[in-house]
Amino acid sequence: MTDSVGIAEIRAAARRLEGAARVTPLLESDTLNVIAGRRVLVKAECLQRTGSFKFRGGWSALSALDPAARAKGVIAFSSGNHAQGVALAAKLHGAPAVIIMPSDAPQAKIAGARGYGAEIVLYDRRSEDRDALGATLAAERGLTPIKPFDEPMVIAGQGTCGLEIAAQTAAVGVAEADVVICCGGGGFTAGAALALEAAAPRLRVRPAEPAGFDDAARSLRSGRRERNDGVGSSICDAILTPQPGELTFPVMRRLCGPGLVVGDEEARCAMATAWKHLKIVAEPGGAVALASVLFRREEIEGDAVICTVSGGNVDPGVFAAALSDYGDAP
Amino acid sequence: MTDSVGIAEIRAAARRLEGAARVTPLLESDTLNVIAGRRVLVKAECLQRTGSFKFRGGWSALSALDPAARAKGVIAFSSGNHAQGVALAAKLHGAPAVIIMPSDAPQAKIAGARGYGAEIVLYDRRSEDRDALGATLAAERGLTPIKPFDEPMVIAGQGTCGLEIAAQTAAVGVAEADVVICCGGGGFTAGAALALEAAAPRLRVRPAEPAGFDDAARSLRSGRRERNDGVGSSICDAILTPQPGELTFPVMRRLCGPGLVVGDEEARCAMATAWKHLKIVAEPGGAVALASVLFRREEIEGDAVICTVSGGNVDPGVFAAALSDYGDAP
Repeated sequence: MTDSVGIAEIRAAARRLEGAARVTPLLESDTLNVIAGRRVLVKAECLQRTGSFKFRGGWSALSALDPAARAKGVIAFSSGNHAQGVALAAKLHGAPAVIIMPSDAPQAKIAGARGYGAEIVLYDRRSEDRDALGATLAAERGLTPIKPFDEPMVIAGQGTCGLEIAAQTAAVGVAEADVVICCGGGGFTAGAALALEAAAPRLRVRPAEPAGFDDAARSLRSGRRERNDGVGSSICDAILTPQPGELTFPVMRRLCGPGLVVGDEEARCAMATAWKHLKIVAEPGGAVALASVLFRREEIEGDAVICTVSGGNVDPGVFAAALSDYGDAP
Repeated sequence: MTDSVGIAEIRAAARRLEGAARVTPLLESDTLNVIAGRRVLVKAECLQRTGSFKFRGGWSALSALDPAARAKGVIAFSSGNHAQGVALAAKLHGAPAVIIMPSDAPQAKIAGARGYGAEIVLYDRRSEDRDALGATLAAERGLTPIKPFDEPMVIAGQGTCGLEIAAQTAAVGVAEADVVICCGGGGFTAGAALALEAAAPRLRVRPAEPAGFDDAARSLRSGRRERNDGVGSSICDAILTPQPGELTFPVMRRLCGPGLVVGDEEARCAMATAWKHLKIVAEPGGAVALASVLFRREEIEGDAVICTVSGGNVDPGVFAAALSDYGDAP
């Protein structure tokens, strides 16, 4: 694999993903537009294979591997969506996959990764050293690690979503707008930003994060990679990363607008809004971009905004509780 | 308006719908395919404007009206989805719309139709004569009635979904299969059947209905329009019609395969399945086709099946209860 990523790698990934990943729809709701006070175009990555955009990066990485390395297999750390993306991409390539997941990851995500045929190794986040566990397994079996965001082929894969956003946004007559992306380590954010720089330079990416895990927003303000203090908690399991990536942050710093930060209750309300007006399933971490559109309206400029719903893998009880609390909201 | 409908009217409706209605995606889930024992392609009409396929028929009818008649306005009877489809289509045409709805229709549907700017007239299904009420209003104000299914321009509009199914199914390599359609009065079923007869003749439409309201299945067996006894009840509010339409049944009889019938609990389970594996919101009546695919597997032939999720307008409590009961099913 290469050490750098740019539009050439993203376009190459798009060619590899053709026929494997889904071109997800750009949705719009007449009622949501009224509620949000501007036109809202929603890139529904929850409708991607495995229920999140992570399949793009997983497929991109697997398909870029040397065949001999691929035959030995891959290993990934993930609380869930990257796990499922890598697991299905590996299965479809006929490659073994080992996924190391925290034992308290959402059951839906553990079951999903297992259902795609991966070997799941659970570890206790409080008492076990994930990296040591992974290094031992990788060395013993000759597995190639597929990192969740600081990996050029993964960033290139997520960037293919940016190419689709450029084409689909142009098709509905929007040329200039903010593109709000649910942000963990920044693979999706950086990949989309690189794609849009080339394909639709008047679309500006902005990361959205949960309060307490707003490392990207703070890093963009200070100009260097800031860490979260690791003290708080959030329902947004998919995007709770300690700090922006080494590869992703320089891209974000160069190309992204200011970060947007929302609370857990705002994310839960956005889950209900996506259910009611878009008829799609958003998981908490996949709803922070829409929550930003709903609750940080004054921090966004323009008559239109694009936002991602980045994933929909959520336990039924968590979803039903969000509907119970916010299903009667407008 | 014309009294007959065929492929020419459907293609004309498709041209009128271009840029107004959405081309909804044909979804597929790797996990759902395993569960269902064959490839399942899901036409997600819940992602249509107003949350159901009914916007197609509403727009088709409004756009086909004589401008003078349109300026006076339209009137529709509906428990909900047709109401919203006609209401939004009228609003976008600048035409007044009066919608007569039963007072016990789902709140989400009443609020939706009102939100699109229609004048809502509620009536008591037990004590008031809906037809007399409508006739009086129509005469007083010169409104054109837009019937929910026995109306050529409405059937033509619903048929545009069949044209999309033909193209999207071919694009994923499926040429011969059953197409299971959630069926009330048969507008969607007949429209799709006419479209597929011309555009993909090896795709055969089959209606899906809830038990106790299986008039289409029984009519297809007997060869004449059978009525439901009207005694039972069902959670599938969108498709509880007394009998197939006068215009729709001859088309169904000529073109459709045997009907499929599922129970309410099977429909509720399918709602949870659509939520979990497809990440879309299905209302009870919009889930009967998927329920047929899941629970009437032996009545369907072939390696692949297409099914519609025809709408997603459901009250949050009904949805949360389905998740609570069936969210942990495979």
